[in-house]
Amino acid sequence: MTKVLITGGGGFIGQKLARRLAADGSLRGRQITAMTLIDLAEPKAPEAPFPVRTLAADISDASAVAQAYEGGQDVIFHLAAVVSGAAEADFDLGMRVNLDGTLNIFQAARRQGDSPVLVYSSSCAVHGGEAPDPVTDGVELNPQTSYGTQKAIGELLLNDMSRKGFLDGRGLRLPTISIRPGRPNAAASSFMSSIFREPLQGEPANCPVSRDYPVWHLPPRMIVEHLLHAATIDGADFGPNRNINLPGRTDTVGEMVDAMTRVAGPEPAKLITWNADPVIEKIVMGWRQRLLPEKAVRLGFRAPDSFEDSVRWFLEDDHRDVAQS
Amino acid sequence: MTKVLITGGGGFIGQKLARRLAADGSLRGRQITAMTLIDLAEPKAPEAPFPVRTLAADISDASAVAQAYEGGQDVIFHLAAVVSGAAEADFDLGMRVNLDGTLNIFQAARRQGDSPVLVYSSSCAVHGGEAPDPVTDGVELNPQTSYGTQKAIGELLLNDMSRKGFLDGRGLRLPTISIRPGRPNAAASSFMSSIFREPLQGEPANCPVSRDYPVWHLPPRMIVEHLLHAATIDGADFGPNRNINLPGRTDTVGEMVDAMTRVAGPEPAKLITWNADPVIEKIVMGWRQRLLPEKAVRLGFRAPDSFEDSVRWFLEDDHRDVAQS
Repeated sequence: MTKVLITGGGGFIGQKLARRLAADGSLRGRQITAMTLIDLAEPKAPEAPFPVRTLAADISDASAVAQAYEGGQDVIFHLAAVVSGAAEADFDLGMRVNLDGTLNIFQAARRQGDSPVLVYSSSCAVHGGEAPDPVTDGVELNPQTSYGTQKAIGELLLNDMSRKGFLDGRGLRLPTISIRPGRPNAAASSFMSSIFREPLQGEPANCPVSRDYPVWHLPPRMIVEHLLHAATIDGADFGPNRNINLPGRTDTVGEMVDAMTRVAGPEPAKLITWNADPVIEKIVMGWRQRLLPEKAVRLGFRAPDSFEDSVRWFLEDDHRDVAQS
Repeated sequence: MTKVLITGGGGFIGQKLARRLAADGSLRGRQITAMTLIDLAEPKAPEAPFPVRTLAADISDASAVAQAYEGGQDVIFHLAAVVSGAAEADFDLGMRVNLDGTLNIFQAARRQGDSPVLVYSSSCAVHGGEAPDPVTDGVELNPQTSYGTQKAIGELLLNDMSRKGFLDGRGLRLPTISIRPGRPNAAASSFMSSIFREPLQGEPANCPVSRDYPVWHLPPRMIVEHLLHAATIDGADFGPNRNINLPGRTDTVGEMVDAMTRVAGPEPAKLITWNADPVIEKIVMGWRQRLLPEKAVRLGFRAPDSFEDSVRWFLEDDHRDVAQS
């Protein structure tokens, strides 16, 4: 008997995770008896063998968060966030959602008094500035964006509140998700999906960085796997730091385009234009794209074998023809 | 023409800093034209060649902070905090003062629109957990106390708000201050001063850890020097990370007692009792007491030569006989 809450439940990861949990019917070896999805706009509920509640709620509103916790939650996946480009453009918005909102989610978990499992989606955007290249475990977080800063603050709160026994936190620094389905968004990393997604669906896309720009990436299927694995393993196994660099894979944009061509033929790559965008370049150059996540590998998180798989999985899971069928 | 604000202005460092600025009459090569001291209880105003305003204010109250900024501030020393033992005992109090209060101070500086210099007192308590021993620059902050967590969050905010040009931040991770004047307080590190201060004034004191416990320490005179140096150097010299490990000195409690004996004779050491306190031990064992602060040394911050100096300076500056004269 376990109840699950997903914030950002209307996002593509939230939706994939919800569908997967509905298909599994259980989590941590226990039958799921209820699931709550919250997002700014009311999320779509998946077909499920248990009741699914959907709420339109702003996590920066503590009373809306209290409503999402009504009846108690056993496992919380906190995915909701204002993305990097938007948090950079509007500092106060990022602070309100990514800091105040995250604290609302954590405090509501604490208020339950039973230390629920809380999986927190942090980001590799916490790395930058004076961090070495490659980034090893134990490197000081020196984010060069407000988004990365707010995610790093959430990590510190998650760790301290786990130490205090208020919640049982597990923080994952997600690599760039590629190939992300849907439409381009305000994330500075949006192009890292759109230059594959749009051409694979017959549409043009622009790449604002050069072919030799490296990307630290992970496909949506493995993100969902990692979130479930994080919820399942013993929180104490994380040790004194509940936040980890998640495995991913580094390929240059050019190598990823070549992988797409090997899977889908030469036509998609012809739809990519290569016009530099200095604003995007400045943000993404501040990130780290090579990481050595040894602790996460010890904890059983695995790295992807190739970007070809990511292209195949996009075609299987998220291509317009599949998604609309 | 420069105006100075000191939060925690009633504390012993705030008072020493205020007296020093009053004696200097200038900061960053400019004449001081006004100084504001705020603290929970109205701070004592030093004799000064410029007007000194004193305010009783809780920094977690944004309107009180706005009052402290009235007329504009050019250099802010943010020293106010709930100390480690108190923040550990009362999580919400620590969050309110050390996180919300710090954010109020930073946001008020931002609201000025002229990016004032802001010196932030962080703490070596940000280090612990998975951090290596000794702590080098660039090590992930993994605090094992709520105080250290809240200080680390302040650092991230300081850095991001400096990057955005909202303020010109300089964050200093202060070593344990020894010999701190006054009375024992709720800091878990309180004994690191009291076992010298009380015996040097003819009173008994208990040491809750063993003689071989190492302490990363700095005397009050050098703390004031470091705060002034931090305010004076160019903010850009800090690079992408505005927060630094400050130089200090590692001696075991036993070595420090021996140094006291060399300066003040054998009597004070006889007034120390050695009854272990597991609660204090658990907190201070989570800290790091050996650091290699290379960046700070490059920036011109210097390490103390001996603990003997600290004992001498206590006798000159803070001994009851001096303080009451």
